[in-house]
Amino acid sequence: MNSAASNEDVLKRVRGILARQPFSALLKTEATQASADGRCEFRISIDGNLMQHLGTVHGGVLGYAADTALTFAAGIAYGIPVITSEFKINFLRPVVGELLIARGQVVYKGRSQAVTRCDLFGVKDGTEKLCATAQGTIVVLPEPGSRPAS
Amino acid sequence: MNSAASNEDVLKRVRGILARQPFSALLKTEATQASADGRCEFRISIDGNLMQHLGTVHGGVLGYAADTALTFAAGIAYGIPVITSEFKINFLRPVVGELLIARGQVVYKGRSQAVTRCDLFGVKDGTEKLCATAQGTIVVLPEPGSRPAS
Amino acid sequence: MNSAASNEDVLKRVRGILARQPFSALLKTEATQASADGRCEFRISIDGNLMQHLGTVHGGVLGYAADTALTFAAGIAYGIPVITSEFKINFLRPVVGELLIARGQVVYKGRSQAVTRCDLFGVKDGTEKLCATAQGTIVVLPEPGSRPAS
Amino acid sequence: MNSAASNEDVLKRVRGILARQPFSALLKTEATQASADGRCEFRISIDGNLMQHLGTVHGGVLGYAADTALTFAAGIAYGIPVITSEFKINFLRPVVGELLIARGQVVYKGRSQAVTRCDLFGVKDGTEKLCATAQGTIVVLPEPGSRPAS
Repeated sequence: MNSAASNEDVLKRVRGILARQPFSALLKTEATQASADGRCEFRISIDGNLMQHLGTVHGGVLGYAADTALTFAAGIAYGIPVITSEFKINFLRPVVGELLIARGQVVYKGRSQAVTRCDLFGVKDGTEKLCATAQGTIVVLPEPGSRPAS
Repeated sequence: MNSAASNEDVLKRVRGILARQPFSALLKTEATQASADGRCEFRISIDGNLMQHLGTVHGGVLGYAADTALTFAAGIAYGIPVITSEFKINFLRPVVGELLIARGQVVYKGRSQAVTRCDLFGVKDGTEKLCATAQGTIVVLPEPGSRPAS
Repeated sequence: MNSAASNEDVLKRVRGILARQPFSALLKTEATQASADGRCEFRISIDGNLMQHLGTVHGGVLGYAADTALTFAAGIAYGIPVITSEFKINFLRPVVGELLIARGQVVYKGRSQAVTRCDLFGVKDGTEKLCATAQGTIVVLPEPGSRPAS
Repeated sequence: MNSAASNEDVLKRVRGILARQPFSALLKTEATQASADGRCEFRISIDGNLMQHLGTVHGGVLGYAADTALTFAAGIAYGIPVITSEFKINFLRPVVGELLIARGQVVYKGRSQAVTRCDLFGVKDGTEKLCATAQGTIVVLPEPGSRPAS
């Protein structure tokens, strides 16, 4: 998945990784967009299992979706394995409706680490509303026997 | 759940709220400690459903556990409804083993918002290892018709 | 400074507040843009006083500039006193050159708190480079005897 | 400055680096404690220059002090050059009084990066009050021709 990879190839690879994540399968996360510049989109259908006690989507689901988009944004931009060092998320509005969308992008891509951003939208009756926003640091994971990509 | 509440009462109330959170039920989160000063502990048995593709616990599970401990720490310290404004989590080590423990505490409790902290431990063969640490801002949620508690 | 305020009025007010901040005077911070939707820009001429020991601008100067842009972004969007609850900053590149620019904007403006973002640029030989990026939470400061603006 | 370094040696080295930071000299920051396990303390006398317009210490000064303690905590724990990747700071109370104290410590020290924490105290009439708390990620800076310390 180098910079010449088509968006279709990138999306296929993202879906392949996602499919091997049992926790993403549990939440039925779908990868709906991905490009080699780091832009990516994930969608989660909101069902009763994802709620907290007040009838809105649990903050932990938003944290998961942010973690996913932040990490994949860097992963597809580097095209090699990465690991999330940290992230920060601001919750703006409760998420209600039928769908949660997480959109990730790369803000900065350095030699060994990237900073990525993710906006989370709740979709109710077809209308998107920004409900959380996150910023994270993603580190290139040295493959065994190799040095970080330069 | 005022400051005179016994730890047993506080824990009971935490468990009651947790039981009404479908997402916490999905992850089989257990509240194992809680006290009116804001200290709390949650445990999640690690099973295959919580994994990412590399065979360690998904970062989203850690984000969920941090969100839970950060929020409840403030919730039990105030004894009234709260909402999480934001948090930041650093991932230190991959979580492997049989159990994930999240321990929350209050760092600062102001009139209308608290800062709380959470350490996350993976337990493998009975040995705890710090695997992530989080810091968040929790806001007192005004009840309808009322003003924030002072 | 309500929403009908002209950008000129907003900038004038920002400059007035900045002029009453001795620490901003010490760093010779200039407000160069401001609008009622929360966009703002600050410039700091890089001189020897702002350096750390490796010959680049001290991270504390970037932290100050981020804090300033994050806070004013919300302040001018609300048009009433605000206070910074927290922020997070990622350092991307060392800052070298002749000028530091901080650009703030509002990501979300709620009833009682806003989330704002700030990009920091170093300018060397006239060329801007993104060197840090920050995200923060700014809270409306109740004026004595009043309630938060709705 | 290896792990066998005496606290006196460590403090001496911290003071040496601080002395070569013009921005730290501008703020008259003093290193008052340091040990090879990463604990460190810095003190800044509060004078008029450090204020914002409301008569309390400017948030940027707190950001600077946090950055300093977070970075040195890791620097002295590793004993080799480090660089700050990011930090997050929560402001708890306005700082008034005669002195600002920043206390840093290492939460986790990995092969190539550490997570550190810093508490900031305002001292008024001799009484310390926690006024801000920060958490950051500090990365080992590879020396030319060398690999990160293991």
